[in-house]
Amino acid sequence: MNGNVKFIDGGVTSPEGFLASGVLCRIKESRKTCDVALIYSEKICNAAAVFTQNRVKAEPVKLTKKNIQDGKLQAVIANSGNANCCTGSEGEQVALKMAEAVSSVTGCKPSDVAVCSTGVIGMQLPFEKINAKIQELKNSLSKEGHKDARCAIMTTDTKYKECALEFSVGGKKCHIGTMAKGSGMIHINLGTMLGFITTDCAISSAMLEKALKESVKTTYNCVSVDGDTSTNDTLLILANGMAGNPEIKTEGEDFNLFLEALNKVNRIMAMKIASDGEGATRLVQCTVNGASSEENARALAKQVISSSLVKAAMFGCDANFGRFLCAMGYSGIEFNPQKVNIWFTSKKNAERYFENYDDFSVHGENSVQVYKDGSPIFFDEEKAKQIMSEEAVEILIQCGDGSSSGVAWGCDLTYDYVKINGDYRT
Amino acid sequence: MNGNVKFIDGGVTSPEGFLASGVLCRIKESRKTCDVALIYSEKICNAAAVFTQNRVKAEPVKLTKKNIQDGKLQAVIANSGNANCCTGSEGEQVALKMAEAVSSVTGCKPSDVAVCSTGVIGMQLPFEKINAKIQELKNSLSKEGHKDARCAIMTTDTKYKECALEFSVGGKKCHIGTMAKGSGMIHINLGTMLGFITTDCAISSAMLEKALKESVKTTYNCVSVDGDTSTNDTLLILANGMAGNPEIKTEGEDFNLFLEALNKVNRIMAMKIASDGEGATRLVQCTVNGASSEENARALAKQVISSSLVKAAMFGCDANFGRFLCAMGYSGIEFNPQKVNIWFTSKKNAERYFENYDDFSVHGENSVQVYKDGSPIFFDEEKAKQIMSEEAVEILIQCGDGSSSGVAWGCDLTYDYVKINGDYRT
Repeated sequence: MNGNVKFIDGGVTSPEGFLASGVLCRIKESRKTCDVALIYSEKICNAAAVFTQNRVKAEPVKLTKKNIQDGKLQAVIANSGNANCCTGSEGEQVALKMAEAVSSVTGCKPSDVAVCSTGVIGMQLPFEKINAKIQELKNSLSKEGHKDARCAIMTTDTKYKECALEFSVGGKKCHIGTMAKGSGMIHINLGTMLGFITTDCAISSAMLEKALKESVKTTYNCVSVDGDTSTNDTLLILANGMAGNPEIKTEGEDFNLFLEALNKVNRIMAMKIASDGEGATRLVQCTVNGASSEENARALAKQVISSSLVKAAMFGCDANFGRFLCAMGYSGIEFNPQKVNIWFTSKKNAERYFENYDDFSVHGENSVQVYKDGSPIFFDEEKAKQIMSEEAVEILIQCGDGSSSGVAWGCDLTYDYVKINGDYRT
Repeated sequence: MNGNVKFIDGGVTSPEGFLASGVLCRIKESRKTCDVALIYSEKICNAAAVFTQNRVKAEPVKLTKKNIQDGKLQAVIANSGNANCCTGSEGEQVALKMAEAVSSVTGCKPSDVAVCSTGVIGMQLPFEKINAKIQELKNSLSKEGHKDARCAIMTTDTKYKECALEFSVGGKKCHIGTMAKGSGMIHINLGTMLGFITTDCAISSAMLEKALKESVKTTYNCVSVDGDTSTNDTLLILANGMAGNPEIKTEGEDFNLFLEALNKVNRIMAMKIASDGEGATRLVQCTVNGASSEENARALAKQVISSSLVKAAMFGCDANFGRFLCAMGYSGIEFNPQKVNIWFTSKKNAERYFENYDDFSVHGENSVQVYKDGSPIFFDEEKAKQIMSEEAVEILIQCGDGSSSGVAWGCDLTYDYVKINGDYRT
């Protein structure tokens, strides 16, 4: 129990009325596990989304933007192995055909289908491979289907990413579930390539959009793996209202309860994405306290976890805190270097802390100070190395400019990142 | 011969009246080669500089900014092994003592000495080690001394970087010489940590500053190795007027001749810095043609060579052009993706092309088109791989938005970058 919110096992099918499935279409010849996912709601949903800010947008992004304009969706089809991006008018047709194929087997309107693709850019997506399995994809829809779906969207991810929780609104028990993929080409607008959130909470499309935009500010938009903003980023939320609570149509207590649940699942997914960054061996959280505003605190934290030099030092467990100050210095944010204090803290098991991240930022046995009031201080190098070698490491920065805090998540830069991306297409 | 400009052997001592030296002070215990350099002009010089835009500035940067305010300098002392940054008031004193030590042995004023440091951030610089060798540093000043000086400023650089050329202004033969270091923590504002330019051309401090600021736009500011803007970046130019030309005090023909020579040496140093980026195996030049303005062309080119994913693909010789489009897309610059064409071209020997870089961008035997009018096309993967495996590779992008061009230089992202930066302090 965590206030109004309780974690439960499951993912996108945990909310009432949602089903999911995954099939193997071999969009990439070598693929061994499912590569196409379907999420379907018995009832049509209020829906909202945020998309990539990259000027080069994949064809499915353009189509989904159009289809969600009326605030309604009923199904989502997503594939890995090919991003259907930079593919011209042929790629545009493929995205459209994917929506029509879902419509033909489920009966929902093609314009109520969201289409998402992830994978290599600049190659045509073989639609016929998806079409050959579209009936099987429909027939496999089930409550258990979230297990195939969460894997079907993985590319270089080494772990599936999902979570679900229960919360109460207007006296009714509601559920929210989510799954996401994202390992490389990840930067702070948005922090993922694909994310899907389902809920049975009744909430209007307008309030859903408001909640989503508010929530990404402190969650998905605070993640960086490699500074590259993908062409396919899409974060979708579907609300079918089947929990039976009075529909949330304005701000107020119910909206806040919903936002709390949404923030919690989004923050967990943000941390999971960062900790499974391409080639990463550890999650790096940067917490900035004592900043002049929350925006500034987050901007400083984001710059620190985005720096290649910081990331390489975190890989080498080298307490090279000068690089944090350097990154803060080119962030464009005002702060007083003379008032900065820096600590490292750590956690042995990253997964355990996703649901209890307040356990970070604690000065104690697993904490070492390396910089004090703008000057280097003597510290135990061995202890610092040991702390930095854990699965989840926090860079804790205390500024002297105010009382605001912000957090960002990243990972270390490793040989494997270079290996994975040196020859991705083959 | 290249118009008014002729390359000559040499570096910072090629211009009349300039001497240089280098000594080994073991600022870093393990250092085997010189680590402190001195450049000295017989006559006091008009001087200009551009500095890091990082908010965290090293102590020598703060001091040199102050000392150059009157537009005059006579000597430059530079050390590697320690950046004297984030070192508080103790570090401030060390920078001041370095200037005073140079003054005590050369007789010039402490306020006419520029101080530059490069190396680890956040550790105190042991001034006594420099002071013990300051007389030797002065006694070694010579015309040949550029050879020790160019090495003394190297950190993770694998090659020294210098060049010199002869040009004519007002009927007088002038010289310009330069040396620079820079291998990591390099991004587009400025593209280096330390750069020094000397000339015997007579030119006022104001025009010197104008020329320097104009020149860095298309040279040093178009280089990125890892996206990290250093805390110590300093590019200094000293002009002692000993060539005897009428002093350049306004824009006009003489100023343009000087600017041409300055651009040429700065571009060569920019390319040398990129090709010796930490861990790099090849120089990557991105040329964008057909853009709506020169600024936009450069901004697009810079974003492409800054992308970690592009850099990893260049290491793997993987013609993954989708990543170029992705990077252009998040550059913030308007362009029409449907009108883009992309080629790779290459050169076998990077060094040879520094002085003749117009040989790039030629469609022919060493060129392969991979993207045509906004759609992928069939291309010979083997040929692309072979072209991309050369020492100098060009990503040639033709937009359909205008007639402006821009160029940026970077390098590939390799295992060695991670290795070098995973444990830099030890």
